[in-house]
Amino acid sequence: MASAYATVDVTGLPAILGGLPEVGAKLGGKPASWRVREVGDGNLNLVFIVEGPAGGVVVKQALPYVRLVGESWPLPLERSWFEYNALVEQARHAPRLTPEVFHFDREQAIIVMEYLSSHVIMRKGLIAAVEYPQFAADICEFLSQTLFNTSVLAGSAAEHKRRVALFARNVELCRITEDLVFTDPYREAPLNRWNRPHLDASKRAFERDGALKAAAQARKYQFLTAAQALIHGDLHTGSIMLNRHDTRVIDPEFAFVGPIGFDVGAVIGNLLLAYCAQEGLETAPGAREAYREWILAAVAAVWNGFRDRFLTLWRRARGGEAFVADLVVSPQDEAAADVERIRFMGRLFEDSLGFAGLKMLRRILGLAHVEDLEHIADPAVRAVCERKALVIGRELVLGAAGFADIADVNAAARAVVRSAMPAHAIHGRR
Amino acid sequence: MASAYATVDVTGLPAILGGLPEVGAKLGGKPASWRVREVGDGNLNLVFIVEGPAGGVVVKQALPYVRLVGESWPLPLERSWFEYNALVEQARHAPRLTPEVFHFDREQAIIVMEYLSSHVIMRKGLIAAVEYPQFAADICEFLSQTLFNTSVLAGSAAEHKRRVALFARNVELCRITEDLVFTDPYREAPLNRWNRPHLDASKRAFERDGALKAAAQARKYQFLTAAQALIHGDLHTGSIMLNRHDTRVIDPEFAFVGPIGFDVGAVIGNLLLAYCAQEGLETAPGAREAYREWILAAVAAVWNGFRDRFLTLWRRARGGEAFVADLVVSPQDEAAADVERIRFMGRLFEDSLGFAGLKMLRRILGLAHVEDLEHIADPAVRAVCERKALVIGRELVLGAAGFADIADVNAAARAVVRSAMPAHAIHGRR
Repeated sequence: MASAYATVDVTGLPAILGGLPEVGAKLGGKPASWRVREVGDGNLNLVFIVEGPAGGVVVKQALPYVRLVGESWPLPLERSWFEYNALVEQARHAPRLTPEVFHFDREQAIIVMEYLSSHVIMRKGLIAAVEYPQFAADICEFLSQTLFNTSVLAGSAAEHKRRVALFARNVELCRITEDLVFTDPYREAPLNRWNRPHLDASKRAFERDGALKAAAQARKYQFLTAAQALIHGDLHTGSIMLNRHDTRVIDPEFAFVGPIGFDVGAVIGNLLLAYCAQEGLETAPGAREAYREWILAAVAAVWNGFRDRFLTLWRRARGGEAFVADLVVSPQDEAAADVERIRFMGRLFEDSLGFAGLKMLRRILGLAHVEDLEHIADPAVRAVCERKALVIGRELVLGAAGFADIADVNAAARAVVRSAMPAHAIHGRR
Repeated sequence: MASAYATVDVTGLPAILGGLPEVGAKLGGKPASWRVREVGDGNLNLVFIVEGPAGGVVVKQALPYVRLVGESWPLPLERSWFEYNALVEQARHAPRLTPEVFHFDREQAIIVMEYLSSHVIMRKGLIAAVEYPQFAADICEFLSQTLFNTSVLAGSAAEHKRRVALFARNVELCRITEDLVFTDPYREAPLNRWNRPHLDASKRAFERDGALKAAAQARKYQFLTAAQALIHGDLHTGSIMLNRHDTRVIDPEFAFVGPIGFDVGAVIGNLLLAYCAQEGLETAPGAREAYREWILAAVAAVWNGFRDRFLTLWRRARGGEAFVADLVVSPQDEAAADVERIRFMGRLFEDSLGFAGLKMLRRILGLAHVEDLEHIADPAVRAVCERKALVIGRELVLGAAGFADIADVNAAARAVVRSAMPAHAIHGRR
């Protein structure tokens, strides 16, 4: 590839890929025979699917600005380097659950990777009410393996500090999260969007919600300072591609060493957004009741499965710098260590709920929305779903410490969704 | 200076310093007239005092191994670079409370700095029962200014991440703390030392103390992951030089971006060690009762003053990335933000006590001891003091969450020191 960065296009891509033997072998035939389409529907990048006689690849190229906003919001190409490093690290710990990487070009900010032709973006599946029997187990495996194994519970301090230093340079992508998740939804920021005029009063109420703003900023502090593990950083249902048999987590360009609960909360929060959207997506009242319950069952399975798998990895670990295994020399020591582990998981649960709530709120009050809700054509119907999501999100943020377990969370979500909630009720509830 | 690292000595130092105009001006006269003495009594470095007709300077050179242990324990010279960076950063925020730096040579791992001829190491003052009227206010100022202003409560995320990345390379010095404070005292490690045979049973009891070991490891996890602020990392009373009018904090070579409570706890824990040592240092029972109370008053003043000063800085801050000032637009918002601030300070108090306790225990059960206790000639008398310090340390580690305020801590410490504690009592108390 040429050394100076240039955006690729449908016409030029075959010649570029033709110079990469491993990619050429995946595709088969001659570059002239390869079909190329641009499919990027995300907010930041160019994404191409390239297909040849032998198979396909995906080519992802970072753009020097935020695609969703335009060239007025520049963004460093280096995020591609962090995405590549995160993909490599995640593949070490959850190889079955990441896309295979065939080629990386740092200068061009291009990653060439596996084309998942039989997978769909999970968010689209949730809109279409598709059940994924492998999803919960797979995402638990991804979360627990990647988050446990990139923490000091599994590895050395030196390794951890190396990882911290590397990803501490991913400043600009982290800043997007810092602003868009924790701050902008709660003030008048030019890029905020919401369902006007239906949610005007709600938006204003959140801007005046002192307790919520303080709790959001406390989570922002945690996001900025809790260097627990290499987190994906954007693990919503648009970063999960799957089918009934297989699950892959893509797009870790927001990766850095941050709070574990942020990834777990992203999954839970986005499932709960999908849960709230079903009312606006169903063809008749109650038509999607079974699917709604499938989503809640997935929420429960994600938390419980993650917690159990993470604990199992921890109990078996021998090489962690924290909770040094050699110090546990008796059954009493083991019992005492387990008390700390259970306490730790309790805090992670609380963190996950707090982050989940904030992820829900920002998708309704902030810049980037989710298709689950945007897909609802009638704005008034959508507003009903959105208000319920706002109530649940707010309860998760402010009441994170009060939920006994994930069933308790689901019961609260169910109660809100089943209620005939008046429009002004969000801030009347507590 | 020559480019390849070589240790300096008393004979060679004047010629080296003679090549540095700023240093030469401080000393005055000709290099041949300068008096040089090696005074390093620390564990890691060479330290020289150089005096000329116009004044003196201190020259600190890192050795490529741990001085306390010998060449068998190599240690990177680069720690001098981290110390220099920490000194510069601390001087920005607490200029009155750090030694002035005149010259830094990265290759030679040499820092030339202000000679504090009228100051003594605080630990020696505590042994001599000297009261320092400025100490508490000064150390509160140092702690609050350096810890607040190097946090995301004061500055940008980008600045914070730059600092995190820089000091994340200070791996080996952090490892010393990780091993010697959190792990080794609680197992059979070859370098452990304790007052034998008087404390043999206590040492064994701590090695079997499952709850204490788990709590110590939970604090180690926090030490490894809580990237709150640029901490000094070794802020014991041997890193404080002072007199009745002036206080300076020296030797920040263990600096990295870590938990704020570690620095605050280091001060509190070392004051409490001095408090416990008074019984062995006094010439007659009760002779040092007033001084003992001065120490406890200092403990209270340090915590309360730090908390108040930190809160004041926080309430006035406009540029913090976390707790964004612009979000606070009403008295209700301010009240809600303050609830979070008070909660934050409560957690810092708990952290500080936990770290203080561990700093006490390791000075009695681990490699590096403190002169406060070592100065007590009769090992049996010293053991009485040490056992009381072990009880207090253990209560701080296990009961950190249970203390209402610092007066409560002091009451607990006073009760232990005033008791006629039998030798086996440490693990009988809880």
